[in-house]
Amino acid sequence: MDIRITSATGTLSGPPVSNADLARRFKMDTLWEEWIDAFIGTRTRYLTLDLTTGERRHSLADLCTMAGREALDRAGLGQADVDLLVLATATPDLLVPATVNIVADRLGIDEVPTFQLQSGCAGAVQALYVARQMLLGGQHHTALVIGGDVSAKHFDLNADLRELPPDQLVNVALFGDGAGAAVLTTGDTDGPLLLRVLNRLVGLNRPPGQVLEWFGLADLDGDHVFAREDYKSIEASVPAMATEILKELLDDLGWTKGSVTHLLPPQLSGRMAERITKSLALPKAEEITFVADTGNIGNATPFLQLERALQQMTTGDRALAIAVESSKWIKSGFALEKT
Amino acid sequence: MDIRITSATGTLSGPPVSNADLARRFKMDTLWEEWIDAFIGTRTRYLTLDLTTGERRHSLADLCTMAGREALDRAGLGQADVDLLVLATATPDLLVPATVNIVADRLGIDEVPTFQLQSGCAGAVQALYVARQMLLGGQHHTALVIGGDVSAKHFDLNADLRELPPDQLVNVALFGDGAGAAVLTTGDTDGPLLLRVLNRLVGLNRPPGQVLEWFGLADLDGDHVFAREDYKSIEASVPAMATEILKELLDDLGWTKGSVTHLLPPQLSGRMAERITKSLALPKAEEITFVADTGNIGNATPFLQLERALQQMTTGDRALAIAVESSKWIKSGFALEKT
Repeated sequence: MDIRITSATGTLSGPPVSNADLARRFKMDTLWEEWIDAFIGTRTRYLTLDLTTGERRHSLADLCTMAGREALDRAGLGQADVDLLVLATATPDLLVPATVNIVADRLGIDEVPTFQLQSGCAGAVQALYVARQMLLGGQHHTALVIGGDVSAKHFDLNADLRELPPDQLVNVALFGDGAGAAVLTTGDTDGPLLLRVLNRLVGLNRPPGQVLEWFGLADLDGDHVFAREDYKSIEASVPAMATEILKELLDDLGWTKGSVTHLLPPQLSGRMAERITKSLALPKAEEITFVADTGNIGNATPFLQLERALQQMTTGDRALAIAVESSKWIKSGFALEKT
Repeated sequence: MDIRITSATGTLSGPPVSNADLARRFKMDTLWEEWIDAFIGTRTRYLTLDLTTGERRHSLADLCTMAGREALDRAGLGQADVDLLVLATATPDLLVPATVNIVADRLGIDEVPTFQLQSGCAGAVQALYVARQMLLGGQHHTALVIGGDVSAKHFDLNADLRELPPDQLVNVALFGDGAGAAVLTTGDTDGPLLLRVLNRLVGLNRPPGQVLEWFGLADLDGDHVFAREDYKSIEASVPAMATEILKELLDDLGWTKGSVTHLLPPQLSGRMAERITKSLALPKAEEITFVADTGNIGNATPFLQLERALQQMTTGDRALAIAVESSKWIKSGFALEKT
């Protein structure tokens, strides 16, 4: 059975926040701005938190609802057409109800199975994996797949960043907020075929590269470290894993490097995206990357890449997406072909 | 293709905590003990938190690892036999890495797809749904499916419960901690067939019956309400939803009420389980219920019920499980037949 991606879209919570904006708000100096530029390569990001007023503009459910509605509109579908809803996030608004069910309610989707995957950078691919497998099972025909993250929930506007160790400081500059969505269908639409979805844990005996805490009442006293990055370990491992994912997808599909027209590389940071794309060395592939402008937007990322891929791909084009989750080390990716 | 449940098991974090233990620890009076007995009908629960010392004995990953290992042992399988791992919880240890990947590491499971579902009382059924659909797809053959919850993470031993409103007070008595696991296979084992899995959101325009918060740094000031129950709404809706789920499963399978030999009813509370089982009125079904002894153990529940069902079922037996998630209102359940 053919599974196609009929539409895809992304939603950010504007306006863009520059490194100078960040530095000013957190009383950091221009040296830090230069460090972000050199080390991370991210120029701007979009945050649900207004750094000046402290106002929280959007929840994850808000962003996911906007993205989901737009994806349905672009597919020319209504909420009643959706018979499966899958959402991936690392940063749910609540533990219960799952954000996916709040989003369903706002979109008017009901009487269908809903699933919410808890995941980091591989979550969007995992959601595509689950949706594709269920569509292939024949019981479902139109899946709305959503991914998003709101990391700004964890920003402490009173924090003195000058006292933060580097493995925490990096997160302030690295992440942005956003959501994205795609419609997958078994019908004969003009979207590209979703030929493969790869998702595999490869973390045995490896310490996590990234840890995001959440807090129960028991944790409310003492020091609160939301996020820790082992950035050196990430830098050492992610490019190699991206190369392995590429090889595995190419071998599985019987594609050559030269036949790939679009590459959707990991979007951990601007610098990493550059390095990875260079090392993958796909001679003819148009690179779809934006992390330098949006920051790392976690589970939203592949949907924004898909949005651009759908705009750019013409008949015969082949796209490969690669995502690496550095938390406990997950290889993920997918392959599209426009027929 | 036939999907069978080869083994199932549950893990609790002992010893049992009585209502008198709870009342003593939180300085409540014997009236409260009587209220728990009359209103909730739960006598004991198992908590990962030692109420006397404050020691936290087990994390969710600890309990899930124990349950997963035991389920594999009972199935006579090793970690290398598992080609799919699915975990459901409402209360992950961390946001990232997902608990499923920590559990995989401890069990020695690697190079396979892993998924973690964020869900309340329907989560275990959702995990069975996902695993069954993937096994039916033919790419996977042996799935380890795990569910668990650790609510005691949120217990504040310094709280004065006498000041809590009823919609929060109920949670202290209602929940227990635990995990469970099952092995699903496409092979010809002597476990019962997993004939159907039902999972459907029915929450359109209905306010949540249960809300569990989690906390970002931004929430660390002020009052922290972890859990709120609309117990009246739950009492009004859940028995009716259970009846609808029963009817739907029976109709779908072409089974009569009289042909069902085992009923695995919702385990919200002792009183609710009694009421629901009575209203379902299955004339010959053995009821598998234990909530009065364990408390509501969320995503662990159906696995403990499955453990007993597998012990009790003989050739020709038919079991129906019913679970209702009151968060945003999800109907779920499944059907087993021993051939």
